[in-house]
Amino acid sequence: MSRFWTDTVRRLTPYVPGEQRQGDGIVKLNTNENPYPPSPEVFKAIAAVAGDELRRYPDPESTALCQTLANYHGLGLDEVFVGNGSDEILALSFLGFFTGGPALQFPAVSYSFYPVYCDLYDIPQRPIPLTDKFEIRLDNFTVNDGCIIFPNPNAPTGRALSRKAIRTLLERHTEYLVVVDEAYIDFGAESAIPLIKEYPNLLVSQTFSKGRSLAGMRIGAAFAQASLIEGLKRVKNSFNSYPIDVLAQRAAVASLNDDDYFRQTVAAVIDTRTECIRELQLRGFDVLPSAANFVFARPTKSSAQAVFEILNKQNILVRYWSREPIAEWLRISIGTPQDMAKMFAALDALVS
Amino acid sequence: MSRFWTDTVRRLTPYVPGEQRQGDGIVKLNTNENPYPPSPEVFKAIAAVAGDELRRYPDPESTALCQTLANYHGLGLDEVFVGNGSDEILALSFLGFFTGGPALQFPAVSYSFYPVYCDLYDIPQRPIPLTDKFEIRLDNFTVNDGCIIFPNPNAPTGRALSRKAIRTLLERHTEYLVVVDEAYIDFGAESAIPLIKEYPNLLVSQTFSKGRSLAGMRIGAAFAQASLIEGLKRVKNSFNSYPIDVLAQRAAVASLNDDDYFRQTVAAVIDTRTECIRELQLRGFDVLPSAANFVFARPTKSSAQAVFEILNKQNILVRYWSREPIAEWLRISIGTPQDMAKMFAALDALVS
Repeated sequence: MSRFWTDTVRRLTPYVPGEQRQGDGIVKLNTNENPYPPSPEVFKAIAAVAGDELRRYPDPESTALCQTLANYHGLGLDEVFVGNGSDEILALSFLGFFTGGPALQFPAVSYSFYPVYCDLYDIPQRPIPLTDKFEIRLDNFTVNDGCIIFPNPNAPTGRALSRKAIRTLLERHTEYLVVVDEAYIDFGAESAIPLIKEYPNLLVSQTFSKGRSLAGMRIGAAFAQASLIEGLKRVKNSFNSYPIDVLAQRAAVASLNDDDYFRQTVAAVIDTRTECIRELQLRGFDVLPSAANFVFARPTKSSAQAVFEILNKQNILVRYWSREPIAEWLRISIGTPQDMAKMFAALDALVS
Repeated sequence: MSRFWTDTVRRLTPYVPGEQRQGDGIVKLNTNENPYPPSPEVFKAIAAVAGDELRRYPDPESTALCQTLANYHGLGLDEVFVGNGSDEILALSFLGFFTGGPALQFPAVSYSFYPVYCDLYDIPQRPIPLTDKFEIRLDNFTVNDGCIIFPNPNAPTGRALSRKAIRTLLERHTEYLVVVDEAYIDFGAESAIPLIKEYPNLLVSQTFSKGRSLAGMRIGAAFAQASLIEGLKRVKNSFNSYPIDVLAQRAAVASLNDDDYFRQTVAAVIDTRTECIRELQLRGFDVLPSAANFVFARPTKSSAQAVFEILNKQNILVRYWSREPIAEWLRISIGTPQDMAKMFAALDALVS
């Protein structure tokens, strides 16, 4: 604490990301990273960047990347925005769209960065409880009384909403923004992007960190009608002109242009997820349905905290939160089949 | 304009960076980029990053980079902060340190992003006029009545303050923060970093974009006593956990470890600056003394705007602002001797 801290700094409780433990032999299933490397085209694109490009500022508008994304999703260039990871897009959106109004509504069990952004900008919060099966029920959100944000699929539960359910919400909730945070959309849920043309209050954010294996490079994207994107650009251009470096811009374009590789690696993760759920159930875990690259599972023979700690000691990292109502659950990222076999071997040793 | 914009978005007038015109034959002297590429060690470090590192999140604390910076400047690890360019560091500092207090004091002619940040966070502003020779006079700032920020050397004037002058300010101004924005410090001015140990209200920001030729990679650094750095980390970790990608972290370390290359390229820029000032004066320009990698110069035979436009048409880009009191001045970045020769040839053709 310093006497030069403002009230803003004093009131903050920063987000704590999952541990980034380094070293060999670590099975890292705690931050939902893709177990497969990015497309070989990404490495070629990085290697092709020359000295002149590093000494110069990158394109502040990331035009080539935005155009590639626009083509990929069938949108206009003015309907696309990119940021330094989807976290930066969310941070700019909270500042630009959620301040000065009624309380922001979001699921009570959800991405734990949302209340942190609210603290940062002094945005009132209204968490909406999930069902007892950890489902988001959009009917429980108050219509036309404040902005709404939710992840789809939700984190850390992995449960997805259908596009139809989101459309039903948008039909009724017309006076405030709805942000759908699609960080995990690549692993099986329905994107809300096709709804953008119809609903001027819909903003969809995505990331290259999960499905596209580029967590190390910090690239996120947002999609909305042009006037919302323009608002986001105004905030971004009042914060940092050049958030995405030249290598990240090139890497992202290369990733989008190798769709076959993307589809193959995502399919492999989905196959491993199916197998992982089965193996967990065989060992007596309750497992929620997952449309993400992780599963949310409750051990029934030991406490979640005990399982977390025993795995942790063996360098098998999963994510555990001690807070209710999720203190009996573990979030396990989907690794390679070999990663998962190591985790199950450790679980089996624990039981026997 | 959208009805979903908040008052925050409506009141913004975003920062406009210098034009990033692409293509061959462009002499780009408008955004203060280093004319020399980064150290060859930077390219080796980038090429050495493997697939596993791209798919994983980078170290959120950029520990290796912070430690290298701490060693370089003789500081502790907890006295160093890094960000996505010094612009992000400034953006986080304005939010964390300048909100909720008296008006922020900064030079009336200065980095034009400062008033933009103030608009973004609704921070009251008190611009302090320069002398008629475009000097910052720290005596003109009101002591102990609000935070102070200034660039040293100043932009776009290039004029530097001595460390002694900054020390004199800090001796009197003890109740509010002083931020010294040292984006251009590598080209000859005295850094305030040696004052950090004595003054708990001093924050110094620097960048890898100018002296270290890494504008394309987005890396900035800040230095202060540990409690101020902790405050900055709280804001950063409430905004974006991972703003610096793995390649940028590695590139920055490699750059710091090749100090010979850094010193040689900076010395070359300084030599060219000396020559450029002489050549401009020969052609009747008023030129301010410069401690930066640009010069601020006033043509006396044509208007600044006319010179700007004629150069621009020939793909020679310099920076011009139409606002008073600098509407008769041009900011010219120092390029290679060949770049400068092209500019002078164009100027000579204009006169003859």
